[in-house]
Amino acid sequence: MQQDINRQILLIKRPMGIPDESCFKLITSAISQPTHGQVLLRTRFLSVDPYMRGRMNDRRSYVPPFQLNEVLNGGIVGEVVESMSKSFAKGDFVVGNLGWQDYAIADEKEVRKINTEIAPVSTALGVLGMPGLTAYFGLLDIGKPKQGETVVVSGAAGAVGMIVGQIAKIHGCRVVGIAGSDRKTKYLIDELKFDSAINYKTVSHLRKALKEACPNGVDIYFDNVGGDISDAVLSLINNHARIPLCGQISLYNETQISTGPRIQPRLLTFSALMQGFLVHNYSDRFDEGIRQLADWLKEKKLIYTEHVVEGLENAPKAFIGLFTGENLGKQLVKVA
Amino acid sequence: MQQDINRQILLIKRPMGIPDESCFKLITSAISQPTHGQVLLRTRFLSVDPYMRGRMNDRRSYVPPFQLNEVLNGGIVGEVVESMSKSFAKGDFVVGNLGWQDYAIADEKEVRKINTEIAPVSTALGVLGMPGLTAYFGLLDIGKPKQGETVVVSGAAGAVGMIVGQIAKIHGCRVVGIAGSDRKTKYLIDELKFDSAINYKTVSHLRKALKEACPNGVDIYFDNVGGDISDAVLSLINNHARIPLCGQISLYNETQISTGPRIQPRLLTFSALMQGFLVHNYSDRFDEGIRQLADWLKEKKLIYTEHVVEGLENAPKAFIGLFTGENLGKQLVKVA
Repeated sequence: MQQDINRQILLIKRPMGIPDESCFKLITSAISQPTHGQVLLRTRFLSVDPYMRGRMNDRRSYVPPFQLNEVLNGGIVGEVVESMSKSFAKGDFVVGNLGWQDYAIADEKEVRKINTEIAPVSTALGVLGMPGLTAYFGLLDIGKPKQGETVVVSGAAGAVGMIVGQIAKIHGCRVVGIAGSDRKTKYLIDELKFDSAINYKTVSHLRKALKEACPNGVDIYFDNVGGDISDAVLSLINNHARIPLCGQISLYNETQISTGPRIQPRLLTFSALMQGFLVHNYSDRFDEGIRQLADWLKEKKLIYTEHVVEGLENAPKAFIGLFTGENLGKQLVKVA
Repeated sequence: MQQDINRQILLIKRPMGIPDESCFKLITSAISQPTHGQVLLRTRFLSVDPYMRGRMNDRRSYVPPFQLNEVLNGGIVGEVVESMSKSFAKGDFVVGNLGWQDYAIADEKEVRKINTEIAPVSTALGVLGMPGLTAYFGLLDIGKPKQGETVVVSGAAGAVGMIVGQIAKIHGCRVVGIAGSDRKTKYLIDELKFDSAINYKTVSHLRKALKEACPNGVDIYFDNVGGDISDAVLSLINNHARIPLCGQISLYNETQISTGPRIQPRLLTFSALMQGFLVHNYSDRFDEGIRQLADWLKEKKLIYTEHVVEGLENAPKAFIGLFTGENLGKQLVKVA
């Protein structure tokens, strides 16, 4: 029986533009007890992800908005400290969508057991979790990369982007990453073996730099960011280009609807496909995806980087950092 | 042996904005003689199509631009008046991409024989030709309509739009057409049995009218026009919506790149697919398409309307009329 108190983080104000810490509040509460079919979890890692920004608005979307003055939730890795479920034993590690708090009660159907032999448990929130699966299905199912094609990835040094680029390399593509610092572009080239990487913040002419990096045009554009960066990439697409739309992080903090050049004439002229997707569309194939990603990890064809912040109390800061480009790799909060 | 002179229409000036008649010139020349493997055709019908506007600009696109001071070309139905080909006999009717002129020489591989027993030969430029095939493949291959879904078609009273709506009805969909006159919307509802039709030129609030016409949202948007009309439709798409991009006629005469609300966030949120396409992407399946369209014609599940202008000399006027909404149905020029 745990005697600790349970710290929780609430959303207390809907952000306008980039969120700041005044939107969040840390409170304490008692630890609940699991009932039949439930487990009590000690939160080990908590995932902050760009899509959560959308849930902070009070707007119709693919997931309901976060409610004010309630505990935020997202991807969590926890250790079972008490089990009232036959499916889980004390000491098991599980992953699921749960609250930002020290201890959580979860129904046995809400969480999935992590195989701790493959990789550290934190990877269940990264390369072997939602970001890895997002990269896997978005690139392979929508992008359909073919040997020798050119793949451009925006947000390339983020949790999804760095997996996308590596999977594209595995498939024999030329891979060009766009990221926001020299440290990131250096990492993409030196560690992940991207063919080219562009720092969009310092390059003098993005379209020109892309054109040099993509002498044969762009066959696949895996879009994590949207906005001006995407305008530049779209100006270079080839016939039958595929554009998996994974994220639009450059627009998540806009307070008005963003405008830009209309893209339909270009998609039409080049018989291009643009497909928005959510990883949950592929939930019946998650096992396949995790198995393949784990195999690539074992074979060292895939490497990953995590950006870990310590302490539940720093989760808001870690979340805000996603929008200022703090993280290289998967942004995690280590809770315990 | 023909003794007539051959009138031809040249493009003599690249239009800025909506083309006017000063861009075109009618000249006369001698009639050429066919050599081995060729036929001499008397042009019967000539097709004017919105995509030709793009070819009038000197810009990279999916077809090379028209050259100045050369004979314009497009879809033509002609009658064989002399044949040096074993594949065609005098009196055969054929369809192909040829010049805007009274008489044309065609290689036997450039033209396809028309089965005159199914329908009048002019349909080889409409319901049984490029526009019909465009509707067929765009709607069925990209749109993938399912019973009970809602399909919105813009440019609904045009050559492609009216076939799209009827094929959607055949597949059990709710069909809403957008067109530019009351005569057109009345035709869509009374003759083609669309469930609803909106005159975008007179409606006070397009989005509101669309919302009323589509109480269950929009599952497929077959886009022929682009611009503000498409913005309104896109604001109503459902999860997993499909958007075949067939044309963007509202933008073809823009002299600057048109801007508008960015659509990627919406496509992302609703896991929507947008796919630009050209009918030529499906050229290996044209036989299938024509066979099916002809069957529907015979079964009276599909009807069509042609808007015929008489006289080669009026081809420029007919072409210009596409952009001012003159035509209800397929715009043709009857040459002889």
